[in-house]
Amino acid sequence: MKRGLFITFEGVDGVGKTTQAERLRDYLTQPTALQDYLDVPRPTVLLTAEPGGTPLGEKIRQLLLDPSSRMGKRAETLLFAADRAQHVAEVIKPALEKGQTVICDRYTDSTVAYQVGGRELDEGDVERLNMWATQGLQPDRTYLLDMNPLDRRLTGEVDRLEGQCFEFQNRVRRKFLDLAKQYPERIMVLDGSLSREQVWTLIKGDVDRILAERASAERLA
Amino acid sequence: MKRGLFITFEGVDGVGKTTQAERLRDYLTQPTALQDYLDVPRPTVLLTAEPGGTPLGEKIRQLLLDPSSRMGKRAETLLFAADRAQHVAEVIKPALEKGQTVICDRYTDSTVAYQVGGRELDEGDVERLNMWATQGLQPDRTYLLDMNPLDRRLTGEVDRLEGQCFEFQNRVRRKFLDLAKQYPERIMVLDGSLSREQVWTLIKGDVDRILAERASAERLA
Repeated sequence: MKRGLFITFEGVDGVGKTTQAERLRDYLTQPTALQDYLDVPRPTVLLTAEPGGTPLGEKIRQLLLDPSSRMGKRAETLLFAADRAQHVAEVIKPALEKGQTVICDRYTDSTVAYQVGGRELDEGDVERLNMWATQGLQPDRTYLLDMNPLDRRLTGEVDRLEGQCFEFQNRVRRKFLDLAKQYPERIMVLDGSLSREQVWTLIKGDVDRILAERASAERLA
Repeated sequence: MKRGLFITFEGVDGVGKTTQAERLRDYLTQPTALQDYLDVPRPTVLLTAEPGGTPLGEKIRQLLLDPSSRMGKRAETLLFAADRAQHVAEVIKPALEKGQTVICDRYTDSTVAYQVGGRELDEGDVERLNMWATQGLQPDRTYLLDMNPLDRRLTGEVDRLEGQCFEFQNRVRRKFLDLAKQYPERIMVLDGSLSREQVWTLIKGDVDRILAERASAERLA
């Protein structure tokens, strides 16, 4: 069985990641006329998120987001890594191995952006930690929604990480953009100040291309 | 100001670490006739333990010991590392920098023994993680209380880690002993099947020697 497709969404909070991730999930699972005609089974799509994608991870997420938690930057980074290690082992890897498509709202790039860009920890150290926590599992495609932190649409209560100052948010943004330059094959940058429809049209076009490539690779195999 | 002395106790649960650590704390803080005569201030001694030596760590400890927690070995190792990173940054390092003596019940050797010996993770990976979490802070002296897992005096409810089978406990013990061979200058092995008084006499003799050496080094400095 072919390993499923692993897609991640990245960017600061309030930029529209969750909306676009849900739209992609709906798009990939919706019935198509061709599938009905050929009686092809719908692809199984798993939409998940970090932190908090497992029962253990949900408890870790509570610790991470609590504004009253006194927490150094290494402890914070290690808690994100613990959440991710469990998420990969319990949810993401098993789903991919069953051939399912996995869409994940935040993954390793967030840790580099927030803990290296924001907290200014050493990049090599954090990358090694990510590799170890994920057993080396990397996304096939990453959609980075980019936006000036001043333009974010934050609603509700602001958590411990989102409550950081503009300088912090700006370092996070720049590190996300650095990653996109470093991994241009994997990361597609989308202008988060466009309308939701415009962003979705770009993502849909890209996903259609990836699915067509995978289908054609399968026919050749 | 001279950095304080950092002493750790290691070994499987039920071997008597806590008893000996408390006795050492009491011994180091008790008034002596000489101190009274010279009006020397009592040394400040901090007795602490892992996991759970900080408010954040106490919450992490609850996750780690809960028998119902579904947790992979990487997530488990990262949670111990997160607890330790906070403990070092918030408690141990500040105390040592103020010249206090710190006694810690379990530290990095436990992670190597349980997660490398017990869970069979890669030793180099776990050592790098320990180094990163602790900012490289190593104990000056470690007392390893060794005992055949079959002879342990376990009381009360058995937690998630102590509930492991004999084979696991035996791998943990062997890894502790491997560490003692690897770091003979730092780790002193004590036979946990001796009486408490016998074990304490050996620790007291060793600590007296260390304190005398430090005092003489200070006079020379």
